Amino acid sequence: MLAMAVFLQARYVVCDASRFVEEGGVLIEDGQVVAVGRAEELLRRLPQGCERYNFGKAIIAPALANAHTHAAMTLLRGYADDMELHTWLTKYIWPVEALLTGEHIYWGSLLACVEMARTGTAAFCDMYFFMDEVARAVKEVGLRALLSRGLIGTADKEYDALREGVDFCAKWHGGAGGRIRCALGPHAPYTCSPDYLAKVAEEADKLGVQLVIHVAETVKEPQLIKKQFGKDVDEGVFAYLDHIGFLSERVVAAHGVWLTRKDLDVLKERRCWLVHCPISNLKLASGVAPLPRLLKEGVRVALGTDGPASNNTLNMFLEMRVAAVLHKGVNLDPVAATAEQVFDLATRQSMRALGFENSGVIAEGASADIMVVDLQVPWTRPIFSPYSHLVYATTGAEVRALMVAGEWVVQDFRIVTVEEADVMKRAERMAYELVAKV
Amino acid sequence: MLAMAVFLQARYVVCDASRFVEEGGVLIEDGQVVAVGRAEELLRRLPQGCERYNFGKAIIAPALANAHTHAAMTLLRGYADDMELHTWLTKYIWPVEALLTGEHIYWGSLLACVEMARTGTAAFCDMYFFMDEVARAVKEVGLRALLSRGLIGTADKEYDALREGVDFCAKWHGGAGGRIRCALGPHAPYTCSPDYLAKVAEEADKLGVQLVIHVAETVKEPQLIKKQFGKDVDEGVFAYLDHIGFLSERVVAAHGVWLTRKDLDVLKERRCWLVHCPISNLKLASGVAPLPRLLKEGVRVALGTDGPASNNTLNMFLEMRVAAVLHKGVNLDPVAATAEQVFDLATRQSMRALGFENSGVIAEGASADIMVVDLQVPWTRPIFSPYSHLVYATTGAEVRALMVAGEWVVQDFRIVTVEEADVMKRAERMAYELVAKV
Repeated sequence: MLAMAVFLQARYVVCDASRFVEEGGVLIEDGQVVAVGRAEELLRRLPQGCERYNFGKAIIAPALANAHTHAAMTLLRGYADDMELHTWLTKYIWPVEALLTGEHIYWGSLLACVEMARTGTAAFCDMYFFMDEVARAVKEVGLRALLSRGLIGTADKEYDALREGVDFCAKWHGGAGGRIRCALGPHAPYTCSPDYLAKVAEEADKLGVQLVIHVAETVKEPQLIKKQFGKDVDEGVFAYLDHIGFLSERVVAAHGVWLTRKDLDVLKERRCWLVHCPISNLKLASGVAPLPRLLKEGVRVALGTDGPASNNTLNMFLEMRVAAVLHKGVNLDPVAATAEQVFDLATRQSMRALGFENSGVIAEGASADIMVVDLQVPWTRPIFSPYSHLVYATTGAEVRALMVAGEWVVQDFRIVTVEEADVMKRAERMAYELVAKV
Repeated sequence: MLAMAVFLQARYVVCDASRFVEEGGVLIEDGQVVAVGRAEELLRRLPQGCERYNFGKAIIAPALANAHTHAAMTLLRGYADDMELHTWLTKYIWPVEALLTGEHIYWGSLLACVEMARTGTAAFCDMYFFMDEVARAVKEVGLRALLSRGLIGTADKEYDALREGVDFCAKWHGGAGGRIRCALGPHAPYTCSPDYLAKVAEEADKLGVQLVIHVAETVKEPQLIKKQFGKDVDEGVFAYLDHIGFLSERVVAAHGVWLTRKDLDVLKERRCWLVHCPISNLKLASGVAPLPRLLKEGVRVALGTDGPASNNTLNMFLEMRVAAVLHKGVNLDPVAATAEQVFDLATRQSMRALGFENSGVIAEGASADIMVVDLQVPWTRPIFSPYSHLVYATTGAEVRALMVAGEWVVQDFRIVTVEEADVMKRAERMAYELVAKV
């Protein structure tokens, strides 16, 4: 049950990347923020029977959104690190993935949802298989998600998979009280033929849903596309996708590590979302995406972790930190990607990329998707700026509470919607059984 | 009081970077490890009256060492981020540092010690001012440290500072039951004249202590040295230091971002320690040190955070993670710097760099410098490799216990040697008062 009115207060209320209130408060009614400001002012006019929470030395901030992952790959966390991409995929990841059942996906996704909630993430974008099971996990834990069935567009049953993806949209889009949105998920331009991609984009248009895809992740991608489909990709992978009519503002493209000048132009012109995944790009040795340039050019950028097989966590705090320091170092530019900019990517921009336009900020009328970050740990003292600490000092383990659409998901560092210990135990057992079969 | 015998057991006992024991145990007597192996075997032959701790689903591992920092700069954590180095130093850091008193240093260092202990770090290397106060803080919290008074070798009173550094060594080297070691700390080759550096190295030789210095941090350093002292630095900064007779195995040099072929040769030949500080190097836009090449060439490498004004934490878990993913990404090499290699840098190698030769491993006869990392958090499930989780999944907040030289410093996620809440409060108040004066 939604409490009619809830009032949260703390040392800082971060409204968005450009505004915060010291000794602030947030009043929430029917799952929406109705007032935000100085706590002492709001306290004078609380509605009757309002529940009150004073978090003291803490930051109340918009909850984070993870704009690209493969949630159920929690089952393969740490299973195979530090190897060549080809070995990693062919000897480790694919053989296990071939054995996945709906039950694996359900428990792996539950574990992922629990991990994300515990580290302040209210929403995520997923592309995988057995998506009904993912939707079920999202609904139970109480998060938001943009979900898509991964589509390989060169296989025998490519159109069966597309049908399944379309059916999934019909069944779940707008589900769980609007917390679940669906998309079509063609895997990548090197695994989907141009005809198939065009067909999928057409279906997305008809359904009014987004398109989730991996693009320009590795330097070899243009060669693969050329080899596979005989297409000219010299101007860049996004340029190629634009040429075949795939690009539009429906597109949420992960990675974008290797971009041409033309790619930047079409990304901007078509208003595509590009999801920056710095840790996965580093760990898989894909490279470093040109984040400062993307921001400067006005490309719409979001932030994501990618799957836990290549990260190895779903922790957006670590992702923010790496994003904020990495580009300074590789560009020898100490003012590249500030704490505030990166925080904006992980909140407002990532929520927008997922289609949750009414989230990612704490403002009148916004959905109450809110995290509370405790500052009672030595590594957050002293406090000069809440953005600095959210991006450069906290680890994610300081998330004390998470509210999604006005409902508590985490309270006092514990998930309140599902049995956390049970999820950990069951998912872990599944993972061991799965790997033993390979 | 040291308990005569203590037995620790957990799901994993990591002995070093190449060996771990499942369902393992460690027996400690008089502050030293006397046995390590399968818990069930060791349990059969525990000495009478032995204290027993079963940590269950956890990793018992060698405690970490932070091989380069400026501990008391905790007071400036998050005070000035995201700016040009010159602005950062001249408008923010130096004006505050000019106001520092011994009391600031004491409380800032205590906060640093508390933060390090809470994140598994048993030893650190510090270069700063009012070093008596740092030593006092180290002693009280119960950590190990290699301490040096920072020396600027171009100022009027350069030899007064050296005298102070030498006196500090005489007073504290081998102090706190051997937990404190001292060094001489010439700041850098661009702030110390060649004559001064030679004199300091001579003094270190006489005293039998190490030399802590910053070298090759930024691309501009050779120019600065040339401009300042009219010296030829074309072959590299380490080559220059070798030429003036400064290099030896006493040297613990931080950064080493910009290295020539000749630098690598002299580093190796003189058996200097190079301390890799990836996060600070990224955040200050200094660049990316060539870690894989250093390892391949056999240079002795340790790992450090640098000061909390440029990091912004003293958390070696985050440092390990960034070190392990960064070099894969920038070198497009997925097997660069494995989890095991990076863990080795943060434990055995960093302890050696600090001169604690008998630490950094869990082995018979080693000092009982041990951390316990809890795995009862969703982001560590399932568990395929303890190294993977220590480097790629844990955040540092999972450190449940820390023992240094056989004495507990952290138990149940709390410091047991000093009042953590009081340290946080006092250090924070000091920081606010200090900054208000600028």
